[in-house]
Amino acid sequence: MTETENSKLENLSRDEIAERDFQAKLALREKEVRYYSEKSKEIGLQSLERFLKYHPSPSRFMRLGISYAHRDLEGVSEAMENGSPWAVVSGLNPSSQLHLGHKAVFEEVKWLQSQGAEVFIPLTNDESYVVGKSPSLAESRRVAYEEVIPALIAMGFPSDRTHMFVDSDYTDIYNVAMDLSVYLTLNKIIGVFGFRPDENPGTFFYRSAVQIAQMLLPQYPEFGGPKPTVVPVGIDQYPYLMLARDVAEKKGMVPPSGIFLKFLWGLDGKGKMSSSREGSAIYLTEETVRAKKLLKTSYTGGSPFADFQREHGGVPEICPIYTLRNYNFEDNDIVGEECRSGETLCGACKKQAISDTVDYLDDFRGKFEEAKGRVDEYILKTPIRSILSK
Amino acid sequence: MTETENSKLENLSRDEIAERDFQAKLALREKEVRYYSEKSKEIGLQSLERFLKYHPSPSRFMRLGISYAHRDLEGVSEAMENGSPWAVVSGLNPSSQLHLGHKAVFEEVKWLQSQGAEVFIPLTNDESYVVGKSPSLAESRRVAYEEVIPALIAMGFPSDRTHMFVDSDYTDIYNVAMDLSVYLTLNKIIGVFGFRPDENPGTFFYRSAVQIAQMLLPQYPEFGGPKPTVVPVGIDQYPYLMLARDVAEKKGMVPPSGIFLKFLWGLDGKGKMSSSREGSAIYLTEETVRAKKLLKTSYTGGSPFADFQREHGGVPEICPIYTLRNYNFEDNDIVGEECRSGETLCGACKKQAISDTVDYLDDFRGKFEEAKGRVDEYILKTPIRSILSK
Repeated sequence: MTETENSKLENLSRDEIAERDFQAKLALREKEVRYYSEKSKEIGLQSLERFLKYHPSPSRFMRLGISYAHRDLEGVSEAMENGSPWAVVSGLNPSSQLHLGHKAVFEEVKWLQSQGAEVFIPLTNDESYVVGKSPSLAESRRVAYEEVIPALIAMGFPSDRTHMFVDSDYTDIYNVAMDLSVYLTLNKIIGVFGFRPDENPGTFFYRSAVQIAQMLLPQYPEFGGPKPTVVPVGIDQYPYLMLARDVAEKKGMVPPSGIFLKFLWGLDGKGKMSSSREGSAIYLTEETVRAKKLLKTSYTGGSPFADFQREHGGVPEICPIYTLRNYNFEDNDIVGEECRSGETLCGACKKQAISDTVDYLDDFRGKFEEAKGRVDEYILKTPIRSILSK
Repeated sequence: MTETENSKLENLSRDEIAERDFQAKLALREKEVRYYSEKSKEIGLQSLERFLKYHPSPSRFMRLGISYAHRDLEGVSEAMENGSPWAVVSGLNPSSQLHLGHKAVFEEVKWLQSQGAEVFIPLTNDESYVVGKSPSLAESRRVAYEEVIPALIAMGFPSDRTHMFVDSDYTDIYNVAMDLSVYLTLNKIIGVFGFRPDENPGTFFYRSAVQIAQMLLPQYPEFGGPKPTVVPVGIDQYPYLMLARDVAEKKGMVPPSGIFLKFLWGLDGKGKMSSSREGSAIYLTEETVRAKKLLKTSYTGGSPFADFQREHGGVPEICPIYTLRNYNFEDNDIVGEECRSGETLCGACKKQAISDTVDYLDDFRGKFEEAKGRVDEYILKTPIRSILSK
């Protein structure tokens, strides 16, 4: 709230303040819903309804609507049924430790793996550096090996079907990028991403070729050739998927499918949980005291006035505490229902969030330490020779 | 000559034809001289006069004016005198076998090496592929190992101070490219090279980062850190040198110097000797019969009429046979003088060119075969770890 807004509120009655706050939150939810539905329509995404109907036990994220749409999942779905090979690619930018928002995405990746997928996780430390999120390739590489990979291992991925690589160490990815780059033009790329004159050529190449190389890597002969592949993405990452699909088609590979996930709200209520906004994220290796404090002071979808909230309910869809509980700890939407009905207020809800989060972090801490000794088991070392000899 | 020109000539007297042909050749020489001097002036290149004056035994190319200008050679010149470390970088696009035009450049590189330089030769098979000169990375890689590297070895480079690498196999070069890419912007690159909408992102990245990485590689800690470096280039390659100088400055390295070489005429008289024009090049592994035929039918700077040429002389500066002899086999400009004076006519000159070329090719053939077994001695294997750990 700005000072002007504050002083305006001072002249309002308590009821008027409560009503205004509620209406603002409803409007935000409206905006959010519209954003997803309009974007999906624009891109031509398909709903997951059919998939949910036919799959005997869809993922928690799909049931809860966190994974809410897909592009071309049919091939993957068939491979799931037939037990034929398919892959998941889900990259991470190792510019900081992982937080609960990352955990959420990788829970969905784990579910996909449980359905038969081979999982590829590129740690894009070149991206971290060239886009300026990390001061050097060395630092983003350190974060990858010391923070990100142990955290992923601690989440419970099995080493035999999970392949992680750090771009600056798996430099064969650049041969793949060069190999694929001839199927794209500057025109096409600028048409998709726009032209940013101050961008450096490393960022340009990363976005236009290296990222695509990562998505199509599982289809190289070294990994068994063309196969259905799915990339779990936020809707803002659709352009990358689109380019990769375009290149795949020209290269005689299977255009990768997409599963689209809603994002986890940051605790500041200002958008997606992100390490770039102070107080937005809870890291997986967060200290208990700090985690508790962040959750206690978090923005919520509730009202400043208990009686008002009991009467009108809260707005869970835009509430960081609700999404945190829902994405991470709940199996159905009871939290949302109890919020909307006004049955549970923010205090009790936060208390449960704190308890669940602290339990999770306590458990994770040990797993994380233990995982540090197992990094090498997960590192992809397969050289990509097929490009180099014919 | 077009048909129209031919029919016009039919109405001319023998003397008029001779005169017209001579004037056309003089005009071409004029154009050539102007091209080099205007370009040099525009770029602000320095003449080699001072270097020639102070160096006790300058290279044959410098004495003959084939190496005709430089940029910032003072640091290299000092290192030569002091015996302190300096480097030469001279890359090659392995899209075809080497021809006499390549040999000429590498003779100059050899001379620089004899003055104390460590020599780096990147074989840019990624470039060959992305610009479409080679159908695949595999094919350009094959040409590099089977044709180009043995040919370079056969020229007599010593293995202890000559470091060759094939980009697709020395993928650390891409980490260097990413490391340096943050010092450039799309704006800058497009300002230098122009914007080509149909270019692929691999070509764009190659030109804007990989090529620069190659020029600055000798200044990484693995090779002893910042040092004077010289790149022998044709004047058309100046933009690459300029970008590399720019990046070096920002990175705290020594901006690389340039030595500018005139090009060897193709036998078709249509420009620089090049494998992309049929009948332009004599390959180092050319069969004797074909080499003889190409030289016999070569374009020359002489007149169609012996008596006219005896009286007026020829125009050696634009003559493939003259440049071929001069660049490859002569120690002073007697060939040019005898041509200009009309003393030696094209027949005799070609005869000598054929004899020298055939001798060279005969000798080269054995060395080339022998060199195939020594490729590995020359391959640079030093990993670039300094970028990856701090």
